[in-house]
Amino acid sequence: MSPGEIFLWEFMGTAMLTLLGCGVVANNVLRRSLGHNGGWLLVNFGWGFAVFAGASIAAPSGAHINPAVTLGLAVNGQVSWSQVPFYIVAQVLGGILGALLCWAAYKLQFDTHDAPGETLGIFSTGPTVPSAPWNLVTEIIGTFVLVFWIIQNPSAEVGQAGVPEFGNAALGYAAVTFIVIGIGNSLGGPTGYAINPARDLGPRIAYALLPIRGKGSANWGYSWVPVAGPIAGGVLAGLLALALPAS
Amino acid sequence: MSPGEIFLWEFMGTAMLTLLGCGVVANNVLRRSLGHNGGWLLVNFGWGFAVFAGASIAAPSGAHINPAVTLGLAVNGQVSWSQVPFYIVAQVLGGILGALLCWAAYKLQFDTHDAPGETLGIFSTGPTVPSAPWNLVTEIIGTFVLVFWIIQNPSAEVGQAGVPEFGNAALGYAAVTFIVIGIGNSLGGPTGYAINPARDLGPRIAYALLPIRGKGSANWGYSWVPVAGPIAGGVLAGLLALALPAS
Amino acid sequence: MSPGEIFLWEFMGTAMLTLLGCGVVANNVLRRSLGHNGGWLLVNFGWGFAVFAGASIAAPSGAHINPAVTLGLAVNGQVSWSQVPFYIVAQVLGGILGALLCWAAYKLQFDTHDAPGETLGIFSTGPTVPSAPWNLVTEIIGTFVLVFWIIQNPSAEVGQAGVPEFGNAALGYAAVTFIVIGIGNSLGGPTGYAINPARDLGPRIAYALLPIRGKGSANWGYSWVPVAGPIAGGVLAGLLALALPAS
Amino acid sequence: MSPGEIFLWEFMGTAMLTLLGCGVVANNVLRRSLGHNGGWLLVNFGWGFAVFAGASIAAPSGAHINPAVTLGLAVNGQVSWSQVPFYIVAQVLGGILGALLCWAAYKLQFDTHDAPGETLGIFSTGPTVPSAPWNLVTEIIGTFVLVFWIIQNPSAEVGQAGVPEFGNAALGYAAVTFIVIGIGNSLGGPTGYAINPARDLGPRIAYALLPIRGKGSANWGYSWVPVAGPIAGGVLAGLLALALPAS
Repeated sequence: MSPGEIFLWEFMGTAMLTLLGCGVVANNVLRRSLGHNGGWLLVNFGWGFAVFAGASIAAPSGAHINPAVTLGLAVNGQVSWSQVPFYIVAQVLGGILGALLCWAAYKLQFDTHDAPGETLGIFSTGPTVPSAPWNLVTEIIGTFVLVFWIIQNPSAEVGQAGVPEFGNAALGYAAVTFIVIGIGNSLGGPTGYAINPARDLGPRIAYALLPIRGKGSANWGYSWVPVAGPIAGGVLAGLLALALPAS
Repeated sequence: MSPGEIFLWEFMGTAMLTLLGCGVVANNVLRRSLGHNGGWLLVNFGWGFAVFAGASIAAPSGAHINPAVTLGLAVNGQVSWSQVPFYIVAQVLGGILGALLCWAAYKLQFDTHDAPGETLGIFSTGPTVPSAPWNLVTEIIGTFVLVFWIIQNPSAEVGQAGVPEFGNAALGYAAVTFIVIGIGNSLGGPTGYAINPARDLGPRIAYALLPIRGKGSANWGYSWVPVAGPIAGGVLAGLLALALPAS
Repeated sequence: MSPGEIFLWEFMGTAMLTLLGCGVVANNVLRRSLGHNGGWLLVNFGWGFAVFAGASIAAPSGAHINPAVTLGLAVNGQVSWSQVPFYIVAQVLGGILGALLCWAAYKLQFDTHDAPGETLGIFSTGPTVPSAPWNLVTEIIGTFVLVFWIIQNPSAEVGQAGVPEFGNAALGYAAVTFIVIGIGNSLGGPTGYAINPARDLGPRIAYALLPIRGKGSANWGYSWVPVAGPIAGGVLAGLLALALPAS
Repeated sequence: MSPGEIFLWEFMGTAMLTLLGCGVVANNVLRRSLGHNGGWLLVNFGWGFAVFAGASIAAPSGAHINPAVTLGLAVNGQVSWSQVPFYIVAQVLGGILGALLCWAAYKLQFDTHDAPGETLGIFSTGPTVPSAPWNLVTEIIGTFVLVFWIIQNPSAEVGQAGVPEFGNAALGYAAVTFIVIGIGNSLGGPTGYAINPARDLGPRIAYALLPIRGKGSANWGYSWVPVAGPIAGGVLAGLLALALPAS
């Protein structure tokens, strides 16, 4: 796979991820949306199916759409380190594009929202109880679950083995979707489960750039946690998988 | 596939789609329904499984049940332009039939509803904040996601490759179902996600014709948006797919 | 398949169906249950997974667990008329057993419920607006969707083709589960979607027999509707399938 | 499979199970969690996907992650009695580890909860109406459904037949997930559905050990019910399966 192809598919897949992922939060939060106050299960199904859509679009490049996945696979020897920068740059840029498109889809709802200063949560995560060490612990545990599961179930990802026939790939994406919904249900309560630096940093940049009426701070002071925590969790998963016997 | 067979299966599949799709909104809206106020996730699962049912019934004709899908596939060269009119006419007529059956199933609930003037939303979509340009943007983005995903995952649809054995087809329909639920969760908030001209126009015609006690306007002034937006989104998806390297 | 084997598996599968199906309604209705007021989507997922469990237990006999399915398949020539009585008797008796087990699981909740006279709905269906003709229409449409879908997607059922390897059977049961959840979401609002005479009549008999403290009427006056409607819907589906070209 | 490998994978799989399973209850219960008051369906999807994650991690050892499953399979002759102790010890220890990790992920939410004396329910089950005999009946019925279903659908489990290619295993885990969500929806109302001694005892030990601010009693008086009931249900399922003709 050429660097250009990696870039193309990871960019498009991650854009799909944040378009749909930020979208479900917008739907839940914004007052003039039909899904207003739809609840936590709605948000989690939304992010789960966002992963399903993004991963199947990014199938040719291995469906990472997440720097923590890329780094965990690299630590485990499944991705070449020389390819890693192309993956990560594409993922962050795709994350920005998806968030911009989400804003366009909800432009009128942003304009008519009654608390425009509190819309950062549509784009990026934040803790309900701020404390960097424990917030990091939560993000590390959540991302570890995701990346360890992916490494232990390798055919859930298609990039390393070429593109399989659709049936198996769809099953793999559905399985990852179940895991992501599960992480959201079970480990998303304290920090909103970034578990993906590109999913958090990309939309945060978009929020800083967008002309949202009355918008609030992009909370850059917290922004390193949903980057560092997922990276640490992904690397830990890669290291543990190296230490285990083959499953 | 003969024009008559295309007509038959698209007609039946789209009737199934709007019977179940309008049905879940009736259940959610009408006061004497057991699912009254069931919420946005109920509505989205309802429309998602409506697509599952309709697509599997329309398997012999490729399971389009949506003019935006037909046009996107035609732009991408996967459907012959001479077949397109048979698809679209069947889809719109099927959309009308399904809505009529939905009304019959909920006849007593329509009769006993306390706000009969506000029942158009059971049949057709409408914006929470009216503004034709931005409502179009929302419908274009939502339909683009649907049709682009279908084109990039071709074995999710069976018509072009003949009827595969059930396992793969069921997986394909389940995958499309996940995408449709995801679009509803994430991009349905502003306009109610028509993302399908036949799903919106067919039931609107049915609403205009039906003897619903105290019914309100069919809102023809808005009716072109959920037709033009999805068509534009589908065509854009077909054009982008043409421009990309094979996935 | 011998009559005894048909009886055994249909009896066990239908008992599983009503144990889990009545159970989710008990959970939703009874005041001292953890799922109290869980809502319509909970009920529909409950019945859907009840079908999943019951159908996979009844796989050896074709996974009917519903007289309307058996009759629709018989009309369409897929089940021998001489086997039909064994299917139906087993289904009704299994429906009774499952409801008895459900009561045992919720015994303490029945004892402590504050409206014991209104517990029939845990066992059997009833209309929100009584009117036999229109209640029949609703049940006919809902059952038609179920049985027509099953006939048009034959490998969703395994009895006619022998027992396939698990993968396909699981997909088939998952597909039927999606259809049943969809019917509940979309067409269950007016009458509670019996769509299965054994699922309604068996638990109604159990309700009449059980020593539930302060229980109310079994509403025998309505009991013929959820038997006649589903039978008519299943037979109509079989007849329409006969008239259509092969899909 | 060596005892060490059985121990490793059952330990890790059950830790994944209780990390995600206790996590969803923490999210639902604790006041400063984003999923606070998310409801019963959220809890059930959470436990279902926890089983999905845990079972796929424990695939090499047969994905039991539950002493009741191990014992039911042993009664039915599918697991050697000499291996049973390794399975069960690993499951209980894994259950403890997962609960400890759950506490770490929700540390700040435990610290800020307004009713810290009522947090046992995050870790272990309890009855809404205490009565040991009927609570046992509920746990026996729920566990019987789980283990009987697994035995009757053997390829849902992979340990006995070696590790199959991913597609089928994913389907098997998804099928078990549907069954577990179904049991939670339908039979979880009275006692919170332990249906797994390790899932209840392991986290109860963790609760007794953890330095949770203001924590309440671990309710050891009830703790034997969610151990004895599931064991009885699993053994009954194994015995009934022995008595039945092959399915």
